[in-house]
Amino acid sequence: MAQKGNLMTVRSDIKILDATIRDGGLVNNFNFSDEFVNDLYRANVKSGVDYMEFGYKASKEMFDVERFGKWKFCDEADIRGIVGDNNSDLKIAVMADVGRCDYKKDIVDRDLSVIDMIRVATYIHTMPAALHMIEDAKAKGYEVTCNIMAISNAQESDLDMALDMLAKSPVDGIYLVDSYGSLYPEQIRSLADKYVAVAESADKYVGIHAHDNQQLAFANTIEAAARGVSLLDATMSCLGRGAGNCAMELLLGFLKNPKYNMYPALKFIEEQVTKLKAEGMVWGYDIPYFLTGRLNLHPSAAIDCVKEGRTDYTEFYTELLDRS
Amino acid sequence: MAQKGNLMTVRSDIKILDATIRDGGLVNNFNFSDEFVNDLYRANVKSGVDYMEFGYKASKEMFDVERFGKWKFCDEADIRGIVGDNNSDLKIAVMADVGRCDYKKDIVDRDLSVIDMIRVATYIHTMPAALHMIEDAKAKGYEVTCNIMAISNAQESDLDMALDMLAKSPVDGIYLVDSYGSLYPEQIRSLADKYVAVAESADKYVGIHAHDNQQLAFANTIEAAARGVSLLDATMSCLGRGAGNCAMELLLGFLKNPKYNMYPALKFIEEQVTKLKAEGMVWGYDIPYFLTGRLNLHPSAAIDCVKEGRTDYTEFYTELLDRS
Repeated sequence: MAQKGNLMTVRSDIKILDATIRDGGLVNNFNFSDEFVNDLYRANVKSGVDYMEFGYKASKEMFDVERFGKWKFCDEADIRGIVGDNNSDLKIAVMADVGRCDYKKDIVDRDLSVIDMIRVATYIHTMPAALHMIEDAKAKGYEVTCNIMAISNAQESDLDMALDMLAKSPVDGIYLVDSYGSLYPEQIRSLADKYVAVAESADKYVGIHAHDNQQLAFANTIEAAARGVSLLDATMSCLGRGAGNCAMELLLGFLKNPKYNMYPALKFIEEQVTKLKAEGMVWGYDIPYFLTGRLNLHPSAAIDCVKEGRTDYTEFYTELLDRS
Repeated sequence: MAQKGNLMTVRSDIKILDATIRDGGLVNNFNFSDEFVNDLYRANVKSGVDYMEFGYKASKEMFDVERFGKWKFCDEADIRGIVGDNNSDLKIAVMADVGRCDYKKDIVDRDLSVIDMIRVATYIHTMPAALHMIEDAKAKGYEVTCNIMAISNAQESDLDMALDMLAKSPVDGIYLVDSYGSLYPEQIRSLADKYVAVAESADKYVGIHAHDNQQLAFANTIEAAARGVSLLDATMSCLGRGAGNCAMELLLGFLKNPKYNMYPALKFIEEQVTKLKAEGMVWGYDIPYFLTGRLNLHPSAAIDCVKEGRTDYTEFYTELLDRS
């Protein structure tokens, strides 16, 4: 597939989704202060960011509300506590995991909600359940994406089938997700071509959500964009699980659309993200994350390794080899 | 230009150069312990790294030997103190800056030296002086590369002329250098095509030296490799000035040639690099480096900003705008 756009022009189809709270919440169990979320919302509005993901719609039967911050559940009242009626151009997104939410009950009709977009996260083998959720959310009036996770471990034929199922579904956007941060730009380009071909034939768009285990989150995001992927996930200063995500500041610095403004994002990082770092919250590239990414493994072992302050990287690597 | 090789095959023309001491020396004025350099040499040999750059051949008239560690000068005896007669497959490189060395005196004949490669670093406007140095080093029997710095600020026509001068020179390799970490993969691909076309027509090779200001050092390095660039610079755990360089561990993890082995590099990082971090040596991606990279400026202001512990990123950004 040919390159779309270039470094001098605006691709008006490109949109940014800020996933700071949702992916960063995996680091601190969603215990962000209201001030943090408030400031982030306002920074996103000012920076021209198109969507802000507030967190998960997790089941309160499966997850103890005492053990997690409110953004794991994203109650309507809690979002409205930040955004009011959201009188801005920024759209509000939440993620709903297959098998970990009570979507029929917890996702209300769009006209009763301040939420604009439901992001259905699924593994390949739970696609039928994901399709039910997609149909439910579309029937309720939402913009809906489907984020197929862990595709670096999936069979290509299964992935093709999943994309075909989504093409025939009412979903609006299909997400290319590099869950383990294991994919190289070369692979991202070829996957982007595959996703974009399927999506365009069904009048849908493609998004990308990258991880920085191999310091490729930003590179993979802009390489995917150059192949026609148009909804780009980023987080402030990479904040996110393990090695983190594509940095919002890098993405805002890269895109040429004058509606984007890096300055408010920098201000937010300066005022809020540096505070989290000073308080000891840990994320970003580190050897253990590189090793799980390199071996195409879930980052959980690396997260434990970093949490325990281990720097016996060779021993950790040997342990991982036994799991891969 | 078409892609060379793929993710399943070996490109036997590809070689790795470890620039840890030379680029890292810009952070600590070359004050590495002998143990560090010794262990690094042995790790590089075991990892199958092809070249190790020990530092600069700087003029002792211009630079005070009391103020810098010995790797700023790379005396023959000091290198031999680490490598003996270097009975290994690893080749030894040093860098010589145009206008900052006494190459006629300080670079001795190859058969009297344990050094294998001279890397001549130059700006576009000092190309004539660089050519003198290249001719001198070639006449003395060395493998010679020319590293044209700061090309992101050069006129394309000047760059074309410089490449043409090098094509006609006896230099062995021409380096694509992203001094400010300002170039995106799209630009690197197009520059790599330009460099490789010129080099191939003159039977020379092309190298790449990247910086991580926009978290693109590794991505730019492997993208350049895919276009035919064959000498790849990396440093252990990115150690290098400002945002640092392409990480050796990432590169060793990426390349498929079975002669490369990531394990000894990991061991070195675990035993030596973590110590430097613990002692307070600072390098790696940070907002100020991103901002100079984004604005295509020399990282010096960002280095000062980080050194002073400033996190007033918006103020720093405004200051930079006045300089760009």
